[in-house]
Amino acid sequence: MGIHQYFKSLSDMEKLYRCPGKFKYDEHTVAAHSFKVTKIAQFLGTVEEHHGKTVNWKVLYEKALNHDYPEIFTGDIKTPVKYASAELNQLFIQVEEEMTQKFVKAEFPKEYQEIYLERFKEGKNDSLEGCILSVADKVDLLYESFGEIQKGNPEPIFFEIYQEAVSTILKFKHMDCVKFFLEHVLPDLLNEKFIPHSELNEMTQNLIADIQ
Amino acid sequence: MGIHQYFKSLSDMEKLYRCPGKFKYDEHTVAAHSFKVTKIAQFLGTVEEHHGKTVNWKVLYEKALNHDYPEIFTGDIKTPVKYASAELNQLFIQVEEEMTQKFVKAEFPKEYQEIYLERFKEGKNDSLEGCILSVADKVDLLYESFGEIQKGNPEPIFFEIYQEAVSTILKFKHMDCVKFFLEHVLPDLLNEKFIPHSELNEMTQNLIADIQ
Amino acid sequence: MGIHQYFKSLSDMEKLYRCPGKFKYDEHTVAAHSFKVTKIAQFLGTVEEHHGKTVNWKVLYEKALNHDYPEIFTGDIKTPVKYASAELNQLFIQVEEEMTQKFVKAEFPKEYQEIYLERFKEGKNDSLEGCILSVADKVDLLYESFGEIQKGNPEPIFFEIYQEAVSTILKFKHMDCVKFFLEHVLPDLLNEKFIPHSELNEMTQNLIADIQ
Amino acid sequence: MGIHQYFKSLSDMEKLYRCPGKFKYDEHTVAAHSFKVTKIAQFLGTVEEHHGKTVNWKVLYEKALNHDYPEIFTGDIKTPVKYASAELNQLFIQVEEEMTQKFVKAEFPKEYQEIYLERFKEGKNDSLEGCILSVADKVDLLYESFGEIQKGNPEPIFFEIYQEAVSTILKFKHMDCVKFFLEHVLPDLLNEKFIPHSELNEMTQNLIADIQ
Amino acid sequence: MGIHQYFKSLSDMEKLYRCPGKFKYDEHTVAAHSFKVTKIAQFLGTVEEHHGKTVNWKVLYEKALNHDYPEIFTGDIKTPVKYASAELNQLFIQVEEEMTQKFVKAEFPKEYQEIYLERFKEGKNDSLEGCILSVADKVDLLYESFGEIQKGNPEPIFFEIYQEAVSTILKFKHMDCVKFFLEHVLPDLLNEKFIPHSELNEMTQNLIADIQ
Amino acid sequence: MGIHQYFKSLSDMEKLYRCPGKFKYDEHTVAAHSFKVTKIAQFLGTVEEHHGKTVNWKVLYEKALNHDYPEIFTGDIKTPVKYASAELNQLFIQVEEEMTQKFVKAEFPKEYQEIYLERFKEGKNDSLEGCILSVADKVDLLYESFGEIQKGNPEPIFFEIYQEAVSTILKFKHMDCVKFFLEHVLPDLLNEKFIPHSELNEMTQNLIADIQ
Repeated sequence: MGIHQYFKSLSDMEKLYRCPGKFKYDEHTVAAHSFKVTKIAQFLGTVEEHHGKTVNWKVLYEKALNHDYPEIFTGDIKTPVKYASAELNQLFIQVEEEMTQKFVKAEFPKEYQEIYLERFKEGKNDSLEGCILSVADKVDLLYESFGEIQKGNPEPIFFEIYQEAVSTILKFKHMDCVKFFLEHVLPDLLNEKFIPHSELNEMTQNLIADIQ
Repeated sequence: MGIHQYFKSLSDMEKLYRCPGKFKYDEHTVAAHSFKVTKIAQFLGTVEEHHGKTVNWKVLYEKALNHDYPEIFTGDIKTPVKYASAELNQLFIQVEEEMTQKFVKAEFPKEYQEIYLERFKEGKNDSLEGCILSVADKVDLLYESFGEIQKGNPEPIFFEIYQEAVSTILKFKHMDCVKFFLEHVLPDLLNEKFIPHSELNEMTQNLIADIQ
Repeated sequence: MGIHQYFKSLSDMEKLYRCPGKFKYDEHTVAAHSFKVTKIAQFLGTVEEHHGKTVNWKVLYEKALNHDYPEIFTGDIKTPVKYASAELNQLFIQVEEEMTQKFVKAEFPKEYQEIYLERFKEGKNDSLEGCILSVADKVDLLYESFGEIQKGNPEPIFFEIYQEAVSTILKFKHMDCVKFFLEHVLPDLLNEKFIPHSELNEMTQNLIADIQ
Repeated sequence: MGIHQYFKSLSDMEKLYRCPGKFKYDEHTVAAHSFKVTKIAQFLGTVEEHHGKTVNWKVLYEKALNHDYPEIFTGDIKTPVKYASAELNQLFIQVEEEMTQKFVKAEFPKEYQEIYLERFKEGKNDSLEGCILSVADKVDLLYESFGEIQKGNPEPIFFEIYQEAVSTILKFKHMDCVKFFLEHVLPDLLNEKFIPHSELNEMTQNLIADIQ
Repeated sequence: MGIHQYFKSLSDMEKLYRCPGKFKYDEHTVAAHSFKVTKIAQFLGTVEEHHGKTVNWKVLYEKALNHDYPEIFTGDIKTPVKYASAELNQLFIQVEEEMTQKFVKAEFPKEYQEIYLERFKEGKNDSLEGCILSVADKVDLLYESFGEIQKGNPEPIFFEIYQEAVSTILKFKHMDCVKFFLEHVLPDLLNEKFIPHSELNEMTQNLIADIQ
Repeated sequence: MGIHQYFKSLSDMEKLYRCPGKFKYDEHTVAAHSFKVTKIAQFLGTVEEHHGKTVNWKVLYEKALNHDYPEIFTGDIKTPVKYASAELNQLFIQVEEEMTQKFVKAEFPKEYQEIYLERFKEGKNDSLEGCILSVADKVDLLYESFGEIQKGNPEPIFFEIYQEAVSTILKFKHMDCVKFFLEHVLPDLLNEKFIPHSELNEMTQNLIADIQ
């Protein structure tokens, strides 16, 4: 009853694992994901600003920080269920909103309720800040899935996630920050290498030869 | 495509954690829970049989083993969401059933589809076996929550779960197996003790004194 | 002192890890393994029944559910020790049986002792249900070891385990359920693929090309 | 070599554990801590604004998000070492700054270097935003240590951390957001209870009595 | 095939957990236990030497370092099984010795076999070094069990282990190092306190009062 | 206050992880590392003795056992920081020494202080025992990094660590124990293989063919 409940709920986000049981090498929590998305959005916004766009930073940070907060109430729902029927998805979004509103009204002092109802609304929309959030969310997802593929996780789901992330980012390809990402970041990511085991032997022999 | 997908899905049940992030001392997977519920149902059925009831064992085992299998498709959905609206819950059950049916039709050979559609149906009903399943499911939940409370987990959710488990079991108090549980099992559970830290000191002194 | 001890022992099975320290990607507990073996036995029994055999389902489920329960008393003993000498193995089996009997007599009410002594006996024998258990046990072992090999675990022990599992299953190749497994399940398992890292690059380029 | 290195470094923050080996119940990463501090700072800023202060939100978010980023370079250094000698501490801060500058110059495009050098500077200063960061950082630390104490962790370090966090917050007691915290949040935190084990027994008996 | 197998086996000791599934707060591996026992033996030997005894340090270190190495071959065998019958125990010791000998002969160069056969022998005997090992082994066990009890683990096994550790140490009460332990170490251990939750509230109020 | 603090500090070494967050397959604690280094030093010393050198075993064991003990005070400091400036490194070593001395003087009885101040000194020097420690430390590091590379960890840091370990060992190539290592151990390590996935298919087919 009060902001203490809100502060306490933040540590629940440290315990919500993304795709539980699927990540074998690096697990990701909703808290850490939210942090990374906000940092990525910060960079993307910086690129947009550099290219002459006006970024509403207060709005961008609010969107990025809070974009997954309602998962506190609903937990991890497998995407296929969420989208199994348009009807279910619609109802689901409605329930999520109702629970968020109920929480704000129960725990926040009156004078801050309006502000937080606004902050916890779905952030992805057609505004510049909404588009940056959509891209930042997928950039982090792309890194998460790439991390597993690179280390050899054979779970096909990561291939699908990677593909979906790239596709969604490409929908925003007219944005300067996406152009930057495609030109300067993605190529470096794809150039990341496995350490070929065979090299080890050769390198060792060279080191030994050198010294003799 | 085929029974391989079904067998593979069993190990997904080893990775579905119950109440993820809440259990601090002993985590429980849906696979392990299903095993324990089946073992408990076996004992409860044995008590019923001893008191003259006729247990359809094949049915009882099928119900217990499979009662959480559809969580493969839907993951961990927080109970409050599930029950947030009667409408959502209804739709949710419907989607779960559709996904299960789709899976059986996609992966099982024709000759076994009928059998598995039957096995994956909701098992809790008014039959003796359905009631035993309801009780066994709550007995395991009661043990899971007691384990946390006994070790000092202050999360109020475990108190609520414990309470709900006891209440549900009491709804079946006319059953012989529930009578047995209330008379012979629950008292022993409640008599489990903390090791009082102070005793350690005393015991150590006694041991030292004895030997001198 | 009583069935509470028995119910409590079930959660000990959630904490007994199979081959501790060897599995790097997915760990398996004795509880989860018992669950999976029972589910696999259920399917194998269904195939046998379809081919005209009479399956005693009550017996089959009892054998599968309880086949590793005595590990509660003996923990994880490395196979080489167990079989280091025929004499030790013989003694070991004897001790395991004695401890199980002692437990049943100490904790179970008189009227259920006979039933549980029977249930905790070694389940693998020449009966149809005993053979199904032998196969189901190895099918799960095969999946466990394959999971590690596929993800790149270089520990030779998993190759040995895989080989031993296949060999044991082949001893029952006259059974209809084994024929089904060899024809319809094993080939799908072996067709599981690694995600070739190189594909990622190509797929990404294609996605980018498509959209331009 | 580019922003890819910067984005990759974000997931390193998911692997930096705070006080490694000390937290027994809930572990905290630098990424999750940064997220929580930013969310807390958001609330504290909202309170300040409500009381007539002008908050530079862009600056506040930048300070909060980035305040522990340089730990990427220096890892977890035990506080006693850091402060063992004023000289060492001074040198240490200097090295941290040099490594951050080197990183920005090596990985960021020229046009963004100035901006990021600014963002990665020490954020705690006498500005309103700097003070909010100082408070937010300690509020999260207070929650982290309280979580351990409440669950029974006897490690004296958490008592010390809790004490230090409260003391530091009290240094800012003239701020409206700290007044709010002391009046409305801290009392609720301190009212959090252990679940008294004895209550369980009583509650169970009541439930049983009620139903008869 | 060679010393590489021996070096590799050392990392197997990092994966052998003591009492797997029982420790809830701090898990202990056989490698870490061996390290701690050797460090404790070093201190106990230092006390003995100070009181005029002649310690054969080379022997003491060899005994302490290697005292659990044969667990590589036999894994974790529950104590009750080991001692279920004198006959089984005898056979068990014999098998352990045979496996150790077989390993040494298979992997060690001829010139070092004699030395390692000696080093891997049971180290606990009536010599001063053998007695120090017996005490050091139990001192570490005592710390391990105390750590769980202090943090609130209600598992009775830790009470039994603690008791057994104290009792065994007391059998050597004539030794100077045991006198030192009983007088100077054990009392400090028993004076370790829980942080009383109630104190938190009081302390906080005091801090607040002080500053006003 | 007393040796109890010293004994307690040993279990802190079980919680200090080496390169936290980097090892994906096998994590290593400072306690386990110290154990393995001591065991490796034991073997290397045995080789030296066999070739006519006089090993001071007491000194060698003391050096190996205690070589990382001061990390208790300083935790995990990233190597780049440690060596970022000669000045910082110098100061850092000084602080480490001061903290160790302070600890010995605070916790050890007077009569043992001299001995432990000596034991906790930096052990790597030009003596035979100092050189053996340098080699043993790197041999374990080499095994740790090889373990990750072999299992497919693409983190370049392990390649660098491996390389650095080999290079350092080669600096001592005139020692008999290093000659032994290069001739008899390293080649076996490099011959360790991945289990080629393709073999599985073939082997399975062969097994099936054989039996028909």
